[in-house]
Amino acid sequence: MCLALSMRNRDHYFGRNLDYDKGYGQQVVITPRHHPFEFRHAGATDSHTAIIGTAAIVNGHPLYFEGANEDGLCIAGLLFSGSSRYNPPSGKKGDVASHEFIPWVLTQCSDTSEFLSIAEDLNITNEAFSVQLPPSPMHWMVSDKKRDLVVEQVSSGLNIHENPTCVLTNNPPFEYQMMNLNNYMGLSSGDVINSFSKKINLWNYSRGMGALGLPGDLSSQSRFVKAAFTASNSICNDSEEDSVTQFMHILKSAEQQKGCVRIGEGYEITQYSSCINADRGRMYFTTYGNSRISVVDMNKEDLDSDDPISFPMDDRQDFDELNACVKCGHGRRSPSCRP
Amino acid sequence: MCLALSMRNRDHYFGRNLDYDKGYGQQVVITPRHHPFEFRHAGATDSHTAIIGTAAIVNGHPLYFEGANEDGLCIAGLLFSGSSRYNPPSGKKGDVASHEFIPWVLTQCSDTSEFLSIAEDLNITNEAFSVQLPPSPMHWMVSDKKRDLVVEQVSSGLNIHENPTCVLTNNPPFEYQMMNLNNYMGLSSGDVINSFSKKINLWNYSRGMGALGLPGDLSSQSRFVKAAFTASNSICNDSEEDSVTQFMHILKSAEQQKGCVRIGEGYEITQYSSCINADRGRMYFTTYGNSRISVVDMNKEDLDSDDPISFPMDDRQDFDELNACVKCGHGRRSPSCRP
Amino acid sequence: MCLALSMRNRDHYFGRNLDYDKGYGQQVVITPRHHPFEFRHAGATDSHTAIIGTAAIVNGHPLYFEGANEDGLCIAGLLFSGSSRYNPPSGKKGDVASHEFIPWVLTQCSDTSEFLSIAEDLNITNEAFSVQLPPSPMHWMVSDKKRDLVVEQVSSGLNIHENPTCVLTNNPPFEYQMMNLNNYMGLSSGDVINSFSKKINLWNYSRGMGALGLPGDLSSQSRFVKAAFTASNSICNDSEEDSVTQFMHILKSAEQQKGCVRIGEGYEITQYSSCINADRGRMYFTTYGNSRISVVDMNKEDLDSDDPISFPMDDRQDFDELNACVKCGHGRRSPSCRP
Amino acid sequence: MCLALSMRNRDHYFGRNLDYDKGYGQQVVITPRHHPFEFRHAGATDSHTAIIGTAAIVNGHPLYFEGANEDGLCIAGLLFSGSSRYNPPSGKKGDVASHEFIPWVLTQCSDTSEFLSIAEDLNITNEAFSVQLPPSPMHWMVSDKKRDLVVEQVSSGLNIHENPTCVLTNNPPFEYQMMNLNNYMGLSSGDVINSFSKKINLWNYSRGMGALGLPGDLSSQSRFVKAAFTASNSICNDSEEDSVTQFMHILKSAEQQKGCVRIGEGYEITQYSSCINADRGRMYFTTYGNSRISVVDMNKEDLDSDDPISFPMDDRQDFDELNACVKCGHGRRSPSCRP
Repeated sequence: MCLALSMRNRDHYFGRNLDYDKGYGQQVVITPRHHPFEFRHAGATDSHTAIIGTAAIVNGHPLYFEGANEDGLCIAGLLFSGSSRYNPPSGKKGDVASHEFIPWVLTQCSDTSEFLSIAEDLNITNEAFSVQLPPSPMHWMVSDKKRDLVVEQVSSGLNIHENPTCVLTNNPPFEYQMMNLNNYMGLSSGDVINSFSKKINLWNYSRGMGALGLPGDLSSQSRFVKAAFTASNSICNDSEEDSVTQFMHILKSAEQQKGCVRIGEGYEITQYSSCINADRGRMYFTTYGNSRISVVDMNKEDLDSDDPISFPMDDRQDFDELNACVKCGHGRRSPSCRP
Repeated sequence: MCLALSMRNRDHYFGRNLDYDKGYGQQVVITPRHHPFEFRHAGATDSHTAIIGTAAIVNGHPLYFEGANEDGLCIAGLLFSGSSRYNPPSGKKGDVASHEFIPWVLTQCSDTSEFLSIAEDLNITNEAFSVQLPPSPMHWMVSDKKRDLVVEQVSSGLNIHENPTCVLTNNPPFEYQMMNLNNYMGLSSGDVINSFSKKINLWNYSRGMGALGLPGDLSSQSRFVKAAFTASNSICNDSEEDSVTQFMHILKSAEQQKGCVRIGEGYEITQYSSCINADRGRMYFTTYGNSRISVVDMNKEDLDSDDPISFPMDDRQDFDELNACVKCGHGRRSPSCRP
Repeated sequence: MCLALSMRNRDHYFGRNLDYDKGYGQQVVITPRHHPFEFRHAGATDSHTAIIGTAAIVNGHPLYFEGANEDGLCIAGLLFSGSSRYNPPSGKKGDVASHEFIPWVLTQCSDTSEFLSIAEDLNITNEAFSVQLPPSPMHWMVSDKKRDLVVEQVSSGLNIHENPTCVLTNNPPFEYQMMNLNNYMGLSSGDVINSFSKKINLWNYSRGMGALGLPGDLSSQSRFVKAAFTASNSICNDSEEDSVTQFMHILKSAEQQKGCVRIGEGYEITQYSSCINADRGRMYFTTYGNSRISVVDMNKEDLDSDDPISFPMDDRQDFDELNACVKCGHGRRSPSCRP
Repeated sequence: MCLALSMRNRDHYFGRNLDYDKGYGQQVVITPRHHPFEFRHAGATDSHTAIIGTAAIVNGHPLYFEGANEDGLCIAGLLFSGSSRYNPPSGKKGDVASHEFIPWVLTQCSDTSEFLSIAEDLNITNEAFSVQLPPSPMHWMVSDKKRDLVVEQVSSGLNIHENPTCVLTNNPPFEYQMMNLNNYMGLSSGDVINSFSKKINLWNYSRGMGALGLPGDLSSQSRFVKAAFTASNSICNDSEEDSVTQFMHILKSAEQQKGCVRIGEGYEITQYSSCINADRGRMYFTTYGNSRISVVDMNKEDLDSDDPISFPMDDRQDFDELNACVKCGHGRRSPSCRP
């Protein structure tokens, strides 16, 4: 269903796959510093750090799927069906409706430590955005330059876990994902040494056999293990181009291809993959239909405004036609034609 | 190491991942109809169907990794270390050096039936292209609109198999891949029905659990199973854009991410992914570094010439900067700026 | 490490494998009705239902590994290293030291409902039997004719779970075992129908392929799945002989063979396998060294006594020499010699 | 379906599981030296080494499932459905009907070298024992003190393989079993070292996790891997009692429990497990119904006779009633009653 990912090179990168059978009207949305947020219980604010991320805009309000603020704090919400439990409001300071949780965090905190301090009496409530939009069962990954946290409110209460894997998917709850990960601890990116038998001559018939046993189906626990392995073994230098490129490759290691996850008459696919450079306020993305990486830089917009600034996520494949240049009759990238 | 893929929609698409720890100087190469080929045993020709595909050009000769001719016949060579056996020349008509095999097929045949007829006394020889370029151990997938064949010369002789899976990777030999595939026949793209126990209440805690057991490591047998499943369950409409997009998604389901397959000090990655529309002579590709799909159309070049026409496979990420347009100060795709 | 099993035919059968690298001086021990038990917190009793099971006798006290009382209530303790948490005594009624837990249950309760009622303020304490015998980390399966319960005291508190699987092994905690079991829900005892691909002809090359994916290693989670599958699919008629035979086959499906689980210089093996007919007070067992099933019937002893009655679990293989009868010179089972 | 096993301690042990949904009237059968064998093509003999093994006797002829001769050469036949190919007689010396193959080998050869020399023009024919008993598709394991061979006649011809695993099951052909075994080379009997990630703290939550990934279902390829692992890691001292005990434990690691392999209305089970001490002419066995090990010693019979000597394989559980001694009122093994 979904995959969140955090990667630390010279900068901190944070993003996700959104996997679903249909789009939600998602766009890249920059919320400037003076956009008014009115929380159910925490009051209103029209002066806060700006936010960049992916959101649907409903009645002028950005409903974020994931985002980062100017301080580099990041958060993504992922489906957690059958496991999350939302409560009625408690009347205490920490009440927050699930659909408000992302802006509630991003407008109040600059890093995970501040988040932990306001999360002390956190109570995620069962209040709906509107009659048409009942609460979705979610859990969240909250990240900054130093660490990743997982926030899950389940039947036994609220749990906030340190997440050393840099990834999060969906079910089962995080402790189960981590317990299951123990079963894969012997996997590696290298060759295999024969420990099966001293008498039988066995053969690395392929490169990559050290990771035999890694799951490749698209269920949420399997994608957690696959993405955790890919992220843990990832090699990448520090440049922005290489970091974004590698981040996208890790996300795509757990991508959902059309046809492989059937739901009734439809199919769940990776609607989009996003990567936010949280240190620089740039958001990169691809869609299922367009593998070219687009980028939006929040610092190129006027952040001291109030209305959300949105950019559509075009799903049409943006081919680079190498020998179809209208100017010269040869490829667009041929030396004679390069601008 | 590698993955070949064949997909039949309105048109026939054929391509591959090339997985290796370094590039080979690969380019998109169109070989026009009058390029002279001089085969070791089969004589010379300078009048043949044109070829488009990926090749390294060595001393003016295109050494193809995969390609298609104007009739739509396609062939890709994939590493087959430790399994392929090349023989000394037999003196018969079917002698062909391994590095010549791709042009030998593409210049003589218009479809797989013709290939089968010339393959009757096929003998792949152990002759080198040059002292510097000894033969690489290879097997091949040969495809047309109707079917896919696998060509393997092993210690027991030459084998040509019908390939119903539409994919080929590397070791083990094809019969082993097919035998192993039986172990996955119960996997599906749907939910799971509890057949484990009537007394225990079990739960599809995630979508996609019907394919639990599908391998996700990057060894060649696991990539064969993963890609065969993805290809077999793929859903895609007939348009060129959607077909190429889906073809690339299938290839990327078995992609190798940097760091996940360690070789000595280096790492094997998917250097490029290619997709040829064999009916229309168009080749699409991405590289590890550039996820934007480039396309070369052989029909836009003069095919009645002789020198190979080549296009570099640029590995730099070609970002689409949505809000950095130099002309208008807004995103390049903003309505005010769209050409 | 261990496996507990419950099976309901005409009678209720309960037993276990004890897996360890050395024996504990275990014997079959019948504790008669007037053996004095003195609990740390719950007081003393010398009038209770008799108990049959496996125990080490230390200073005249039977320390049970598993057992059943005359009412048919059964309980087995299994290692739970790194997961169980024992507390200091709370001063409430439910304080019980871990080594006392089995007789505390069996002397007070006649079925699982009574157990649940006394377990309301259960607090398993960290008190040792003696300086030489510190508490072992354990969890327990408590069973009667109607249901199986799992009792685990972990860091988050005491959990009592209904157990629909009829089996229990060791780590991880029971919720994790059950969550993991969902991953196997598609397995079956039958053949497989090809749902992988409509285009590829796949083959049930062996009987039993419906359970492909079932784990066969000897770690505790794998043995849980393997034994749960075997127990869930087990077919057996109602006779005592067939029931005991089948019960032992299920236990042996998750047996530990010498050499397969290395611990330092030693090897963990299935020291013994036991099967109690809880309705009739008979205990059957085999040992690693002796596959012949021995049986002890508690009703053949004087249960109105006080001293434990014990039977050694002989580990020497008791071969039946078919053609070495000392009396007749032929096999012991030859018609001429049968008693 | 079946499992053959060879084990070399001080003596050589050889045996098998016979897995089927019904018995074949199998008995322990000793064929003395002067029993007349009349082969279809190889002529007749009534002077040969004696044989001990499991057989059905049909019209006075022992049809062996497995056996050993006085020289210690052993052979077992195992089902090989869909893979074996029997030919019409060739007219050459090596013609032998499949049902004759075991006595043909055991009456002519004293070790595997002699077998290889007579196997040079071996042609296993499609001739039936009788109209009622058409040929069964089989392959064979032939063993002596030094090595194990696998004999398979498939569509591509006769293959004789060295077998370093000491085990054989059924499909797929032996090269496939060995290729597949490479996938398990990283498994071990020890603990696991975390090579998955340097950043994630993972845990050996159970002993035995080094073999995670070992299959536990009852299909023939999975049983091959499971039994090969168990045999390869088996630890056993040299005594006859311990060797036979351990041999049986290895066989039972791949046993088929009733209910786990459904065939139409029936269930395939391990009908019997046998273990021949090939150096001493003793055959040990258990049945599904009787776990006590029986033993027949061929040297206690008159081997210079001609009629087969047979011993039924009693399937009734031979319980040892420890406290039901008719003489003393206590257990049969109580000190006061031991003979």
